[in-house]
Amino acid sequence: MINETAPLTVPQAIRARRSIRHYLPDPIPVERLTELLDLTLEAPSSWNVQARSVVVVSDQEGRDGLAWATGGQPHPQEAPVTLVFVASSQTWREDLSDVYEQARKNGAWNEQFIAGFSQASLDFHRDLEERGLLREYAIKDAVIAATYAMVTAASMGLATSPMNGWDECKVKKVIGIEDRDDLHIAMLLPVGKAAEERRHPGRRPLAQNAFDGRYGRGYDSVPGRTVRV
Amino acid sequence: MINETAPLTVPQAIRARRSIRHYLPDPIPVERLTELLDLTLEAPSSWNVQARSVVVVSDQEGRDGLAWATGGQPHPQEAPVTLVFVASSQTWREDLSDVYEQARKNGAWNEQFIAGFSQASLDFHRDLEERGLLREYAIKDAVIAATYAMVTAASMGLATSPMNGWDECKVKKVIGIEDRDDLHIAMLLPVGKAAEERRHPGRRPLAQNAFDGRYGRGYDSVPGRTVRV
Repeated sequence: MINETAPLTVPQAIRARRSIRHYLPDPIPVERLTELLDLTLEAPSSWNVQARSVVVVSDQEGRDGLAWATGGQPHPQEAPVTLVFVASSQTWREDLSDVYEQARKNGAWNEQFIAGFSQASLDFHRDLEERGLLREYAIKDAVIAATYAMVTAASMGLATSPMNGWDECKVKKVIGIEDRDDLHIAMLLPVGKAAEERRHPGRRPLAQNAFDGRYGRGYDSVPGRTVRV
Repeated sequence: MINETAPLTVPQAIRARRSIRHYLPDPIPVERLTELLDLTLEAPSSWNVQARSVVVVSDQEGRDGLAWATGGQPHPQEAPVTLVFVASSQTWREDLSDVYEQARKNGAWNEQFIAGFSQASLDFHRDLEERGLLREYAIKDAVIAATYAMVTAASMGLATSPMNGWDECKVKKVIGIEDRDDLHIAMLLPVGKAAEERRHPGRRPLAQNAFDGRYGRGYDSVPGRTVRV
């Protein structure tokens, strides 16, 4: 049974999450999966272009395909669902009038804002294109969404494992985009009920990866100090 | 005053988060900032190499620097703190025995696991290097951490704005790594108390960016359906 209790707070979900390689076969009820996907796609994206998407792989053929694409790793075979996060590096060129119309209707953006914003988005992406960064920036947005999925799943009592170990061409073939140069795989995320317990391997001390003002100057967590000078 | 009430659940934090461009000058008490950084660096990373770090920019010189590096945008000037997320594409080559020792002490990884895991991590990263993907993969891990920060801040009642609009060389100069080719800027994240309300611009309908098994086949959220076949 999937845990149906109240969702965890953010700190609780973060502390509870571990990367899980073995899953029970219990299916995820579609209501919970839909909620997970909905919260996942609430993730912010550069210029709200939403150039990232998620493919839900759950049938036997897809799972066999992901087993093949990940070199036979257990989690995509065992988990009832694996989410494949796809980044699109060309969406910014497409017609985004529905995105602007929705923001207009929601009272979030007015005409003047939309005019400036849509032009600035084009300029921004053309600059990325010149610098060869379109793929990197699309992947960043897909990773934000994947992280939303990870944390949301943890809050629901569902286990995940963010996976980088796959052959991009093979994953694209499994989800039917082997001929699409504009689409890129950002992450695979098996989701389901954990069939193993994992202890926390730990993290390096805070001051080793948190710095104060300049890289390498360890962050100093003196109580009572306010950081702003 | 920074909101000191109980943290939000993950769904609440995700629904409440908006990208905020204007901030009150209220400083963030160091206890809360430390908690935010600690939860941020709980983020998973590829092979637990933790090749991402965060530079806390809060003094006037740093804020002026980030104003310069972002073309004069308001948020890094107004927010009491901007977090700069740095990706390191060479950490995997370094001595990681402290990471393994910690996992061993925590009872998470045994000797046999560590031996296989450490070799597999080297092989994985050498393969990324051959394919020119070391930067991309380090940036993915930094973006996971930045997303942890975004969602954690929202759970604390703090506003953020994930920023891509900056000059990488200038940001590197501000945090003192202009001569480091192994370090890359993944994201800037101003954090503080919002000085504006933002309405949700909205997201495209779920079936437009969530797919069932194959890219382009809209996800169908029929209640009662279980997704696993």
